[in-house]
Amino acid sequence: MAKPKKTPRPKAQTPKGFRDYFGTDVSDRAEMLQAIAGVYHRYGFDALESSAVETVEALGKFLPDVDRPNEGVFAWQEEDGDWLALRYDMTAPLARVYAQHRNDLPNPYRRYTMGPVWRNEKPGPGRFRQFYQCDADTVGTASMAADAEICAMLSDTLEAVGIQRGDYVIRINNRKVLNGVMEVAGLAGDDKEAERGIVLRAIDKLDRLGPDGVRALLGEGREDLSGDFTKGAGLSQAEIEIIMNFVGAFDAVQQTIGHAATNAFEAGDTAQGKRLDRARNSVMAKTRDLCGDDIQATKDWNDFLFQHLKSITGNSAVGFQGVEELENISKLLIASGYLNNRVIIDPSVVRGLGYYTGPVYEAELTFDVQNEKGQTVQFGSVAGGGRYDDLVKRFTGQEVPATGVSIGVDRLLAALRATNRIGTTEQGPVVVTVMDRARMADYQAMVAELRSAGIRAEVYLGNPKNFGNQLKYADKRNAPIAIIEGGDEKERGVVQIKDLYLGAKIAETATHEEWAGNPSQFEVPRDQMLAKVQEILNQ
Amino acid sequence: MAKPKKTPRPKAQTPKGFRDYFGTDVSDRAEMLQAIAGVYHRYGFDALESSAVETVEALGKFLPDVDRPNEGVFAWQEEDGDWLALRYDMTAPLARVYAQHRNDLPNPYRRYTMGPVWRNEKPGPGRFRQFYQCDADTVGTASMAADAEICAMLSDTLEAVGIQRGDYVIRINNRKVLNGVMEVAGLAGDDKEAERGIVLRAIDKLDRLGPDGVRALLGEGREDLSGDFTKGAGLSQAEIEIIMNFVGAFDAVQQTIGHAATNAFEAGDTAQGKRLDRARNSVMAKTRDLCGDDIQATKDWNDFLFQHLKSITGNSAVGFQGVEELENISKLLIASGYLNNRVIIDPSVVRGLGYYTGPVYEAELTFDVQNEKGQTVQFGSVAGGGRYDDLVKRFTGQEVPATGVSIGVDRLLAALRATNRIGTTEQGPVVVTVMDRARMADYQAMVAELRSAGIRAEVYLGNPKNFGNQLKYADKRNAPIAIIEGGDEKERGVVQIKDLYLGAKIAETATHEEWAGNPSQFEVPRDQMLAKVQEILNQ
Repeated sequence: MAKPKKTPRPKAQTPKGFRDYFGTDVSDRAEMLQAIAGVYHRYGFDALESSAVETVEALGKFLPDVDRPNEGVFAWQEEDGDWLALRYDMTAPLARVYAQHRNDLPNPYRRYTMGPVWRNEKPGPGRFRQFYQCDADTVGTASMAADAEICAMLSDTLEAVGIQRGDYVIRINNRKVLNGVMEVAGLAGDDKEAERGIVLRAIDKLDRLGPDGVRALLGEGREDLSGDFTKGAGLSQAEIEIIMNFVGAFDAVQQTIGHAATNAFEAGDTAQGKRLDRARNSVMAKTRDLCGDDIQATKDWNDFLFQHLKSITGNSAVGFQGVEELENISKLLIASGYLNNRVIIDPSVVRGLGYYTGPVYEAELTFDVQNEKGQTVQFGSVAGGGRYDDLVKRFTGQEVPATGVSIGVDRLLAALRATNRIGTTEQGPVVVTVMDRARMADYQAMVAELRSAGIRAEVYLGNPKNFGNQLKYADKRNAPIAIIEGGDEKERGVVQIKDLYLGAKIAETATHEEWAGNPSQFEVPRDQMLAKVQEILNQ
Repeated sequence: MAKPKKTPRPKAQTPKGFRDYFGTDVSDRAEMLQAIAGVYHRYGFDALESSAVETVEALGKFLPDVDRPNEGVFAWQEEDGDWLALRYDMTAPLARVYAQHRNDLPNPYRRYTMGPVWRNEKPGPGRFRQFYQCDADTVGTASMAADAEICAMLSDTLEAVGIQRGDYVIRINNRKVLNGVMEVAGLAGDDKEAERGIVLRAIDKLDRLGPDGVRALLGEGREDLSGDFTKGAGLSQAEIEIIMNFVGAFDAVQQTIGHAATNAFEAGDTAQGKRLDRARNSVMAKTRDLCGDDIQATKDWNDFLFQHLKSITGNSAVGFQGVEELENISKLLIASGYLNNRVIIDPSVVRGLGYYTGPVYEAELTFDVQNEKGQTVQFGSVAGGGRYDDLVKRFTGQEVPATGVSIGVDRLLAALRATNRIGTTEQGPVVVTVMDRARMADYQAMVAELRSAGIRAEVYLGNPKNFGNQLKYADKRNAPIAIIEGGDEKERGVVQIKDLYLGAKIAETATHEEWAGNPSQFEVPRDQMLAKVQEILNQ
């Protein structure tokens, strides 16, 4: 008989672009998501967990006649010929769920969902093919109250997970305003779709490229530092100015209010002058600081802003409607107390893709962090969303208005870590060492006693022969305390309790004499073990 | 130009065998898993979330030369030729993670994990192709203390989620004991693997088929009521008796203790006789009631049980080792206080598959429920596990001992519902109705006020024209309260508060006169809205 061939050992590796999460990476995220779910629930949003697998047909991004329609998604063919795929976001499945269950769901339907999504993209540094999304959407209403509510909820959510007021801002804009401006600039009509896309992407890069960079992209194009040339939208100088009047709305409004304040002072109306001055100063064009608690300044600022937007959208009906929607949202958020110091109307927010049909919004963290290059930068965007009105139509033929937000779970968690709102290392368990293998039952009884008191504790389960290995293990576990009960201690009815954190601190600074005194180790009667451990942990 | 072909509308449907979870199905599960994670954490287990996608090679159940190796799993081929698949359980990924990261992980490594797994199986009623698992395993130690610890933890876990002591039992056995018995029955050796498998499966069916059914399967075979014949292991009568001595160990031990008690009484040792009588009575063979708090009875019972198991495993070394391991676990669980009324040694537990190499354990809920046929049955198993020592070896070549448990998340949740430990319907949000679309800001301010006080609340976002629809919506949301502020109320500075639960109750019983008095609707000043809502909710 031939000797059976040996199968080579499989490689112990995650597939390319996938990763495992350990310990606090998992539990901190779970805790954060739970806090988020608490806020969403309070806002009347219901939980939904749709299946991770969808028919490719329902996901709908793909051509039905392609042999292997898995561009961008992970897809496979069933024996009966159907193609299935892993969801790539939470919005496409929501449209399917809503269409499938609409007779049973409340209408409008507020839902939140959290879980992994998958993208079949080329993995890169920091780019993974599986990551978490956490979405909240309201389906079935065109009311601006739905958009305003989601922005307020986003604000409450950030504070609930530990971002302080003042460390974030939620910016709102409306696509219709930009569409109105583009109409005025002569960019309406189906044949100008490419140009509109370039304009959208150019404005989205304002923070990075500055006004001159955006101007170049609106015109002939722009060469970057590496010499690469990006083709522009090819607008005329006049058209560019119209767009830039929109992009630079903040500065323009500030100037206008400044003039109005000066005029008021000159006319002797000191009260009005001061009031307008407050509005101008409290919303700074550059840093876009919020108006603090000065609600009147917020209202004055917004009045001038909406005036400006109406003037630059001219006769465009869609532009006018966009400004009206912003005014509406603004009014709602002032009434519920969010628009003075948490949420701001900001015409520079466009959100890159063509997807949105009305209000768009994003949450930005404004505190500084170091980037990979060691530069100090603002942390930046952690959530974004907007109104989309066409998704459900694919299934039902009826237009169903919807609006929603998606939180970048990994980024928000990173932000909480960056600001030490959650620690990166966790206190480990109390480790009960094993001095006598035959007395494992005694050690188990000790951990049982500690655990019953709610203390995280474990007995060493490796080979107990080498005591040094047990202390190394306790160290690796970041254990605060080790407990030792050898034969001698057992006989005398005591245990040794080592305060490992204190020991490490002393080891850094102590003289040999101090160290020899062993001030971080305590002998206590066995029946006082729990009390002593609690005392050390509560220090 | 030819008219472009219309793409047919996609079907709004989950793929076959998949499902969506709504509302409390999601949040109750999240809450239950959080309680479980709390216990696991206290026991020193660290969270792990491995990637949902693995290489088919790492999952390892599949032949590498098959063109499409997706039997049982959902698998697809990457552009570079690699096959990837969705995990089908949590144990295969654990082996991969441990092999990949073993230099960074503590050793032994205690980890827990919870999440969906996928099976490419034919879907059926109640059988889904995506479901949750929640596992805890200890990798890297052969110590029975690890197995004992997991059983104790399982007990704490069930109580933490709301199963009361006495409503569950955790049974422990050891595969080695059965292997010893099979050795005595002449079923050792590679050529008897098929027979051993039949014996294993036959014993696993004891609850359903009774001793005679098991006997038939050990012998020639068994015809069931439908006339289907299952081939047996073909054992001789003597061999069958050896196996049945193991299967019937509980009855045998009870008889033996009974005889010993009688002998003690006859010898005039009343104290000893009473003590043994207590042991016999407190562990009933049929219902396998636990020993309550009578720790001595537990010890006595177990002494007789281990004696019996040693006698039926005869000279088998593996059998002897199995009994010793059980004795060891038993001692540890008595010391930590679990073996008297929560955990029991039970030789009838075998756990169906060939996977396990030592201790096996399962958690059973002992209260009665109605099955689909309306019969009263015990709820049954909700978790199981055991020791498996070969999984990591596939990757590293080294044997790594491991033991772990898996909780059936959906079944445990169903159990909590069956015993009303969690409700099936949830109280909905307070619904603020919209009487005047132009005053949406007022209504938003109301919900903001309620939410700030921690009350779940929402404003009606549908078309407000038909007030009846708003009340229907509140009903569908299971709202406890509706708030109404029309123009008249606004003018008078009041709001109407409808207690919808009380209203529904009154509607069932009230006379026309009582009903007309409208005792479930209150008018309060606007600034007392919050207090009144709180008062109603706290009733």
